[in-house]
Amino acid sequence: MKVILAGFGTIGQGIVKILKAKDNFIKKKFDEGFEIVGVSDSKGAVYDSRGLDLDLLLKIKHEKGTIKSYPDAKILDSNRDLIDEDADVLIEVTPTDIRKNSVGMSNLLRAFKTGKHVVTSNKAPLALNFKGLKKEAIKNGCLFYYDATVGGATPIISTAREILDSVNIESFQGILNGTCNYILSRMTEEEAPFDLILREAQQLGYAEADPTYDVDGIDTACKLVILANSIMEANATFKDVKVKGIREITEDAIKLAKRDGKVIKLIGEIDCKKLEVSPRLVPEGHLLDVSGNFNVGLFRTDFAGEIAVGGIGAGQMETASTIFRNLIKILRSKHGIRGMA
Amino acid sequence: MKVILAGFGTIGQGIVKILKAKDNFIKKKFDEGFEIVGVSDSKGAVYDSRGLDLDLLLKIKHEKGTIKSYPDAKILDSNRDLIDEDADVLIEVTPTDIRKNSVGMSNLLRAFKTGKHVVTSNKAPLALNFKGLKKEAIKNGCLFYYDATVGGATPIISTAREILDSVNIESFQGILNGTCNYILSRMTEEEAPFDLILREAQQLGYAEADPTYDVDGIDTACKLVILANSIMEANATFKDVKVKGIREITEDAIKLAKRDGKVIKLIGEIDCKKLEVSPRLVPEGHLLDVSGNFNVGLFRTDFAGEIAVGGIGAGQMETASTIFRNLIKILRSKHGIRGMA
Repeated sequence: MKVILAGFGTIGQGIVKILKAKDNFIKKKFDEGFEIVGVSDSKGAVYDSRGLDLDLLLKIKHEKGTIKSYPDAKILDSNRDLIDEDADVLIEVTPTDIRKNSVGMSNLLRAFKTGKHVVTSNKAPLALNFKGLKKEAIKNGCLFYYDATVGGATPIISTAREILDSVNIESFQGILNGTCNYILSRMTEEEAPFDLILREAQQLGYAEADPTYDVDGIDTACKLVILANSIMEANATFKDVKVKGIREITEDAIKLAKRDGKVIKLIGEIDCKKLEVSPRLVPEGHLLDVSGNFNVGLFRTDFAGEIAVGGIGAGQMETASTIFRNLIKILRSKHGIRGMA
Repeated sequence: MKVILAGFGTIGQGIVKILKAKDNFIKKKFDEGFEIVGVSDSKGAVYDSRGLDLDLLLKIKHEKGTIKSYPDAKILDSNRDLIDEDADVLIEVTPTDIRKNSVGMSNLLRAFKTGKHVVTSNKAPLALNFKGLKKEAIKNGCLFYYDATVGGATPIISTAREILDSVNIESFQGILNGTCNYILSRMTEEEAPFDLILREAQQLGYAEADPTYDVDGIDTACKLVILANSIMEANATFKDVKVKGIREITEDAIKLAKRDGKVIKLIGEIDCKKLEVSPRLVPEGHLLDVSGNFNVGLFRTDFAGEIAVGGIGAGQMETASTIFRNLIKILRSKHGIRGMA
């Protein structure tokens, strides 16, 4: 199966590493593997219908900072030209960008127009126009998987769709941003103020230099929109979410909560199709009480009660493992193979 | 699809309630529903190939204590006679019994011999002879689902098999017994001794009059065996598990742990095919730190890191919802339908 990889940053390189590591696993299961035929990064794109060498891709990227100097491949000027080349699947992992005409949005639409299945971790296009993208995918007979947009390695979307498909999901609450959860957990452990812990998180690489996107709840809101649309049949976009971040959480608030056997968490909630992101009190030992950079999704169902799924919310190999899972689903579809069980 | 229900206690009645509630959901999805054609309880069995009335079954059981007086149905003397009747699926939910020639074991084997698919919540037969049962199922071309043997509503087996099938599960830890978890959580909250909290749990119906099976770790060990065999390709039986229960946990031990930011939990662990049940220290906020009667399963994987799934570990409707999920899988198989996603 021929694959084009748009975006060759942390996640893109993680995918190549997993494809290398899982080569035998795939071929044993399907008598067919994945062939990366095209790759783009911010500097350019290369394509070779015979397949690119995975080790060489990683080496050139590492040494030169771009895959443009990959030898003997067709050099292309744009993602659009790359996506127009022959392939079965586009993996879209360019940096997420909340603007309407982002690279990610154009890539996804072009892939569907040219009949390619899509696997993506790119949140923003889905938070802006989930319905439109889904429609394009269906119109062109393409599979469209985006599990990696929410939760990193945490299988929140797939648990809802594959495990909870025989019950009714009545509401959802989740911790969907590892940076905020890390900051709140550290504030609780250290009884230290927000600014201090934010600086610590920035030094450790757990928070961006500009932390707005995370700490003001925007990232959580984007993920909530994707969840509402994909698992609860809402028709929501980013502007439908009521959002409050964690900047105003004080040491005192955390101490008071602790005295009462509670912790403060940034919770994204979907209830009766109302979407809200806000700091909430959670009892210690509750299914939502996970600390550090973990994510968790909690579904309230009609007959199964509360079901929670937790895992690592970001990270190169963790997010890439979810992309890989979706790739395997595409192979399964092609071969008409159902799950193992 | 014709279904025989062996066992009409709490879980069996829960299944009938769900089948009633989900009737429209099923028919909308599959153009075909489930028909209960036979039911047994400890007093006897009834069968009618045209289907039994669900409301009447519940009413008669409630009023008379047994389904034997169901009107105009064929009365049968034994589970064996019932299972020999015509049907597509056996739901086996008789009380679990760790002896070799238990009713459950005979029922499962008879169902496979007569070509019936099986859905069960009955742990003991699987903990004693998983391999043998699996072999019989395969030999006779029968589907065999037992998700409800582990975790109640918590989808531990299905997460491993359906969600984590593209990664490698390297080890497993879980809280698999709600009674122990309730007792340990209450001991932590109240700083009270084991005996006192056990009596409280017995009064509230969370622990049996004879609590051995739960508090000595036997129940957790049975579940661990099923997990090791079904998701990690072990060939284990009950006697392979090293087991230590929670009777010796003192208030002081719990207080000391708490001072150190930890809680004591009864953990079942599978690592390098070694199976062990024992009380362990777990950091507060850890994915395994769930309190009350919740269960949790934590998988350590090669690329997805740690993935946890938590939910309610027992209960009528919760366990029945997992049986129902397995029934839906059988319908999907018959119709060649894959998951929603």
